[in-house]
Amino acid sequence: MTKDSSNAMWGGRFAAGPDAIMEAINASIGFDKRMAAQDIAGSRAHASMLAAQGILTDNDAEAIREGLLTVLSEIESGSFEFSTALEDIHMNVEARLKEIIGEPAGRLHTGRSRNDQVATDFKLWVRDQIDAAVSGLEALIQALLVQAEAGAEWVMPGFTHLQTAQPVTWGHHMMAYVEMFGRDISRFIDARARMNESPLGAAALAGTSFPIDRHMTASALGFDRPAANSLDAVSDRDFALEFLSNASICAMHLSRFAEELVIWSSAQFRFVTLSDRFSTGSSIMPQKKNPDAAELIRAKIGRIFGANVALMTVMKGLPLAYSKDMQEDKEQVFDAADNLMLALAAMEGMVKDMSANREPLEAAAASGFSTATDLADWLVRVLDMPFRDAHHVTGTLVAMAESRGCDLPDLSLDDMQSVHATISDEVFTVLGVQNSVASRMSYGGTAPTRVREQVARWKEKLG
Amino acid sequence: MTKDSSNAMWGGRFAAGPDAIMEAINASIGFDKRMAAQDIAGSRAHASMLAAQGILTDNDAEAIREGLLTVLSEIESGSFEFSTALEDIHMNVEARLKEIIGEPAGRLHTGRSRNDQVATDFKLWVRDQIDAAVSGLEALIQALLVQAEAGAEWVMPGFTHLQTAQPVTWGHHMMAYVEMFGRDISRFIDARARMNESPLGAAALAGTSFPIDRHMTASALGFDRPAANSLDAVSDRDFALEFLSNASICAMHLSRFAEELVIWSSAQFRFVTLSDRFSTGSSIMPQKKNPDAAELIRAKIGRIFGANVALMTVMKGLPLAYSKDMQEDKEQVFDAADNLMLALAAMEGMVKDMSANREPLEAAAASGFSTATDLADWLVRVLDMPFRDAHHVTGTLVAMAESRGCDLPDLSLDDMQSVHATISDEVFTVLGVQNSVASRMSYGGTAPTRVREQVARWKEKLG
Amino acid sequence: MTKDSSNAMWGGRFAAGPDAIMEAINASIGFDKRMAAQDIAGSRAHASMLAAQGILTDNDAEAIREGLLTVLSEIESGSFEFSTALEDIHMNVEARLKEIIGEPAGRLHTGRSRNDQVATDFKLWVRDQIDAAVSGLEALIQALLVQAEAGAEWVMPGFTHLQTAQPVTWGHHMMAYVEMFGRDISRFIDARARMNESPLGAAALAGTSFPIDRHMTASALGFDRPAANSLDAVSDRDFALEFLSNASICAMHLSRFAEELVIWSSAQFRFVTLSDRFSTGSSIMPQKKNPDAAELIRAKIGRIFGANVALMTVMKGLPLAYSKDMQEDKEQVFDAADNLMLALAAMEGMVKDMSANREPLEAAAASGFSTATDLADWLVRVLDMPFRDAHHVTGTLVAMAESRGCDLPDLSLDDMQSVHATISDEVFTVLGVQNSVASRMSYGGTAPTRVREQVARWKEKLG
Amino acid sequence: MTKDSSNAMWGGRFAAGPDAIMEAINASIGFDKRMAAQDIAGSRAHASMLAAQGILTDNDAEAIREGLLTVLSEIESGSFEFSTALEDIHMNVEARLKEIIGEPAGRLHTGRSRNDQVATDFKLWVRDQIDAAVSGLEALIQALLVQAEAGAEWVMPGFTHLQTAQPVTWGHHMMAYVEMFGRDISRFIDARARMNESPLGAAALAGTSFPIDRHMTASALGFDRPAANSLDAVSDRDFALEFLSNASICAMHLSRFAEELVIWSSAQFRFVTLSDRFSTGSSIMPQKKNPDAAELIRAKIGRIFGANVALMTVMKGLPLAYSKDMQEDKEQVFDAADNLMLALAAMEGMVKDMSANREPLEAAAASGFSTATDLADWLVRVLDMPFRDAHHVTGTLVAMAESRGCDLPDLSLDDMQSVHATISDEVFTVLGVQNSVASRMSYGGTAPTRVREQVARWKEKLG
Repeated sequence: MTKDSSNAMWGGRFAAGPDAIMEAINASIGFDKRMAAQDIAGSRAHASMLAAQGILTDNDAEAIREGLLTVLSEIESGSFEFSTALEDIHMNVEARLKEIIGEPAGRLHTGRSRNDQVATDFKLWVRDQIDAAVSGLEALIQALLVQAEAGAEWVMPGFTHLQTAQPVTWGHHMMAYVEMFGRDISRFIDARARMNESPLGAAALAGTSFPIDRHMTASALGFDRPAANSLDAVSDRDFALEFLSNASICAMHLSRFAEELVIWSSAQFRFVTLSDRFSTGSSIMPQKKNPDAAELIRAKIGRIFGANVALMTVMKGLPLAYSKDMQEDKEQVFDAADNLMLALAAMEGMVKDMSANREPLEAAAASGFSTATDLADWLVRVLDMPFRDAHHVTGTLVAMAESRGCDLPDLSLDDMQSVHATISDEVFTVLGVQNSVASRMSYGGTAPTRVREQVARWKEKLG
Repeated sequence: MTKDSSNAMWGGRFAAGPDAIMEAINASIGFDKRMAAQDIAGSRAHASMLAAQGILTDNDAEAIREGLLTVLSEIESGSFEFSTALEDIHMNVEARLKEIIGEPAGRLHTGRSRNDQVATDFKLWVRDQIDAAVSGLEALIQALLVQAEAGAEWVMPGFTHLQTAQPVTWGHHMMAYVEMFGRDISRFIDARARMNESPLGAAALAGTSFPIDRHMTASALGFDRPAANSLDAVSDRDFALEFLSNASICAMHLSRFAEELVIWSSAQFRFVTLSDRFSTGSSIMPQKKNPDAAELIRAKIGRIFGANVALMTVMKGLPLAYSKDMQEDKEQVFDAADNLMLALAAMEGMVKDMSANREPLEAAAASGFSTATDLADWLVRVLDMPFRDAHHVTGTLVAMAESRGCDLPDLSLDDMQSVHATISDEVFTVLGVQNSVASRMSYGGTAPTRVREQVARWKEKLG
Repeated sequence: MTKDSSNAMWGGRFAAGPDAIMEAINASIGFDKRMAAQDIAGSRAHASMLAAQGILTDNDAEAIREGLLTVLSEIESGSFEFSTALEDIHMNVEARLKEIIGEPAGRLHTGRSRNDQVATDFKLWVRDQIDAAVSGLEALIQALLVQAEAGAEWVMPGFTHLQTAQPVTWGHHMMAYVEMFGRDISRFIDARARMNESPLGAAALAGTSFPIDRHMTASALGFDRPAANSLDAVSDRDFALEFLSNASICAMHLSRFAEELVIWSSAQFRFVTLSDRFSTGSSIMPQKKNPDAAELIRAKIGRIFGANVALMTVMKGLPLAYSKDMQEDKEQVFDAADNLMLALAAMEGMVKDMSANREPLEAAAASGFSTATDLADWLVRVLDMPFRDAHHVTGTLVAMAESRGCDLPDLSLDDMQSVHATISDEVFTVLGVQNSVASRMSYGGTAPTRVREQVARWKEKLG
Repeated sequence: MTKDSSNAMWGGRFAAGPDAIMEAINASIGFDKRMAAQDIAGSRAHASMLAAQGILTDNDAEAIREGLLTVLSEIESGSFEFSTALEDIHMNVEARLKEIIGEPAGRLHTGRSRNDQVATDFKLWVRDQIDAAVSGLEALIQALLVQAEAGAEWVMPGFTHLQTAQPVTWGHHMMAYVEMFGRDISRFIDARARMNESPLGAAALAGTSFPIDRHMTASALGFDRPAANSLDAVSDRDFALEFLSNASICAMHLSRFAEELVIWSSAQFRFVTLSDRFSTGSSIMPQKKNPDAAELIRAKIGRIFGANVALMTVMKGLPLAYSKDMQEDKEQVFDAADNLMLALAAMEGMVKDMSANREPLEAAAASGFSTATDLADWLVRVLDMPFRDAHHVTGTLVAMAESRGCDLPDLSLDDMQSVHATISDEVFTVLGVQNSVASRMSYGGTAPTRVREQVARWKEKLG
């Protein structure tokens, strides 16, 4: 591209001049129209309260409330014409209301301002997303519980450093993710309780001299109480940041699971088979199944945590109460929420559809002297050897097996006793992978009994 | 710098060869020694439990518990010699224990592994930081309450876009930060409850075949319960990420307040005078007071949120259960915690010491037709004008005042009535800034009465 | 919202089932259609090359090239119907091409794959944005040069810690930003040179056995050369990350300037007046001018740097060569580029329109004993006092002036000599702000002469 | 921990009161002492220039220059006593100089300030790190070239989605990383050229009235020229951000390679064997080799990019010229630089030591019908089939082979012709993996010839 053509592009992009640039950077209607339902719910609650407090006549309030329903139905049906000149969703709705009901529309804004209005709308929107995230997480957990219950006894390698460390059960591995996603739910629920305070009536920033009843609007909108300080109420975006923080941790969990699914789907691992629905093939290699959904889920942490960084950066160092910088909050949260819900749904779908391949799982679990720890523990438990000494004896036996190209259970008792004389043949009861996992009966351990207990507890919890 | 000299530097830095490089990248003792007290507390609880379960003799357990106290006192007194060859705090402590008590030391590691040990140590460390953060926040809130109570009636400008919007009170502004820091406390407390589950006894990842009692060690260490899944217990770093997320939001609040203090300290604003203790001077301009502490506090969000990004990036896509990548968790949390506590303490100190300059605050509050909203609200309330019409009338009156170079209260009733005939002289009761703030009696509003209620509520809450 | 309704919402969102979820997460046509022009340019170059190498007949190549122009015109006119089932822009274009020209369309994909195709498209798109950023930065610098030249002699305070430190000139301050934006240009130009290598012909990842000529397509598309390693060519997204890194630093510069404009526009500073076009007013306070554009520009670093974090997180730990995760690259770059261009244009517009308020600028520059350093330097230069001693004498004189409520030039020679006997009345020549700035003649200093030299150098550079 | 004990800890931490808190947050000597050599080099250059310009006597300059060497040797030998009360490295050095040489020490600071001094020191320090990074990258590339040359013909699977896509050569894969690290070098070199301008002489921010020669000090310190604007010179931290951006992209490359090494080291892949030096074992499973170094390298992107986020956040919205916030710049860059150099050295060591396991590599390359593309290309090239049709025929043949449990070369010519009649037995020449890679002769392709050309080109480039 030559200099001239790039200048032309630049020129072209902003040819319309400063007014068009200002409109482009200033207007929010392009994205905040997603909060139309919340805006209208807030305005309807406000109108009712104004009437109850005698600030508005009942007739005016009724006209406003009905008119707003009309506006909502126009928006939902797609017939509403949004205007960029009217900047944002609040002005678009109010302007249309005025067309529909006339003068009383001008009384709706009494005792509030766009500052508390947008804070209210956005909080309601975020609160819905929290509820949706919780639902999505619960559905994913349900799918994991099905896998865990079916595979409570299936043996697979437990990895550290992606090297086989000890045998575990498929159910145990699934339940590890249940714990993670369970914490995500708990985090969202805490955030919901904390943010559930109504900004409405904080007005521009100082409160108002009208005798409004903020408790009434708070209650009508499902808030637990009105926010306690009007300056804070309009300048607070903690609820958005906390949503993004929680979503980021949740996306991190998803990325770990997705990474495992990608590795487990490789020809080298063959631990799981993903369904065709969540894979893509190759027109030329029909046997090839690319784990596209898993990869995309793995990647979602990028944009979700990127949104967290974006909003944290915006909020850094902003003086009270309202600065226009804060208009940058919504698109980040919208995008993060959309992608979190999509990733949860895709993961739920994948988990429902996927099949564990028991044979390679068990073969891998048995390889690599994975029961060496069981042997060492036996030496400690039965022969009362100090732990560190038992490790030494075990290491010698593993080295012996390795040099003979066999596994630990393949050594003879004589072999064993040549290293440590008092080893008895009871030792062989702990060297198989099934025995190994069955023996890990400590609370939270991988024994099938323990896994089933975990499943039962979660089933009860989810009701 | 020439090529040669830079090669020399490079060579010099790593001249010791691959073994030195591996030691440098692999050893954690340089930083994880900060968890010595937690490591020893965990080991002592573990030893007691092993004895109670009959896995260890009482004598051995007692020797271990006493020996560990000796190690702790050596570390606290500075006489302990840390060894990089022993890699981490766990091995350093255990090796020294063996020197002190001999053979029983080798029995301590029964039924656990470094994976659950480090998770336990780190959780205990983070839990202490949560408590410290809560204490620091409470102390800061106390300092703010003193300011708020003293200045419940002092008038200052409430800004939007750093332009005077409406008068508020100093106390109201202080209480906005109390709300923010109060949410921070609530967030830390929720995180503490969520993370307060003991990983100890999860062993390497699968649990153990020893008949350990994880509830007993959990209880001894102040945990609410043992973690429910051993794989999750060793691979989970949510507690660190949630601490960093909460610390980041708190640091964001601090950055906003610090920004205001920097602006308010400028010669142009003169809203506050910071104490000499939290400012630095110039050897040449003795009157100059640089708000260094405020600037440094403003900056702390950088490293605290940077730590959050760092650990989130590390955890992205890590397969279960333990990967060495996770060793990168501690330095980030240590640095973020140290800096959060320092920033909270510095802010508390500044708030305690700072003086609001009432005269410029009030002058600024009264300028810029800051009671125009009060006028408009009066028109709505008293004359029953629709809100949008009242705005129009007010705009006309402000323009009149501006063209005459006077403020709204300086207009005559005739002037007023020339714009709208039914305005009465009652209007003048709402045009002064004192009247304005006194009138904002809505819940959470800036009226001194409301501010004092907020102060009282927080005093009660903090006990 | 009740549990049920949130479940309903969740259910509703994904009611269409797993296939719809997979389509939603997998398809990229919703955003990659922005690369239609680049995709078609790449395909046209590829077709020409295939014909030149005898891999395609001239007739087929000509049909393809003409057909692609038809597709492009359909897209540009808005008549093209994009299909989500066809997933991406490449398949959409090829499918339409087949409808238009039939069988030869099936020959276009010879010797390439979607992996090198998307890398090529995206590089071309990013390259255009680099050019647009350079143009936007040049336009902004031009606007700053006009301000700098006009105000080369206007005195204003130079701040450290937002406290007046020394007088500088308006022109000097403007030129500081010219240097920053100049470095941004240089950074973009370096990035362009580095990334200007063609991936086309790398095929899926291994290259191809067809006798293609990658130099020919590289040249046709304005690349300097073909990328040297086919695996790297399809897995590389450095060019996107480097664009985002450079855009982030540029956005940081914009945020600093925007912050100054917000502070300077406050009633307390009144250093600049922004035009109505880039401010918004209040319906009620007509004199109020909110610096909305400046605030929004200040905020843009959030989403631009957030995009950088997002893509860096996505790329972390991805094995070679292509993983579907990389599909997350485009939306981040698109959004960052759009917002960077918008912010640059808005800043250019603001700078063009803004007026420096010379009177408050100069008054602020003269306050706060801002020429104390000049006095100290005079003592060193003329009386040969060591620097540290000169500072001490100056401090004493400033304290004397402060206690008398006057400024340094208001002290008498007797006053001066009472502190240091050999001070002569030549000292008064350095105490005025005009003299102060005029004296700072060191290279890069604030003296009007030096500022004009800087302006001249930049004018020459921009041609 | 009870409330009381946490209060005690909090109290204990900050018991020393506000002055101690201010010292803790304000002093930088704890970290900026790392810039001692740079600080002294800058001061020595400044002293020489002051003498050359007649601002200092030759005797004084000589005393200063010698005295500074004494200070440097004290610091290097560890005998220097750093004082926190003296805040930073500049004051520590100057105070010690005064003790050594007396009065002339007070003349050193003529015509400069701590603002330009710290900018100069930090730039010199960062410049050294750029040189070290380039050296480290060159050493790593050399190690990769050895691997690439040895394995130019070794066949391995080329992956997309971690699924085998096409055979490539080991050398080709190594060279992909050479390209990445080569771009990193180029990025660092560009950054070095851009930042190589001297801030020295910018003084506090406005320049100075002393007749200093900034070109002379610039030249003495190896800078290309003095920075052109004194305000910009002291407020600019672009060089640190650009270093961090480049380091982050480099760390991302390292994370991708490290991820591959971790996966390749798994029992399931067995593609490489890492040396014992860069792995750790298990006391109990002697055959286990944990790829610790690879995992730690993979994680380093966290703290390096975290540092980038930290400094970008700090710089966001800072007014000119100097704010104390900027003191937070150094620790981030120090930590990122240390960890980048360590990661590069560890990766170089691992690459030198590692062994490719040819047998499993080739077996994996041949599995999964990895030459299906070769078959399709043959159909296009030899039979002139349209690409899309060739894909269809190939898919049918792969399905036939799969159903028979054999690979493509195992099908008979009859089998082939049953699907497409004109297939000749020449087709078998393209179905082996060796033939496949040998045929990918396009520029940058995986053919051994092409790989050797790439190696030769890089050897020449590195000299």
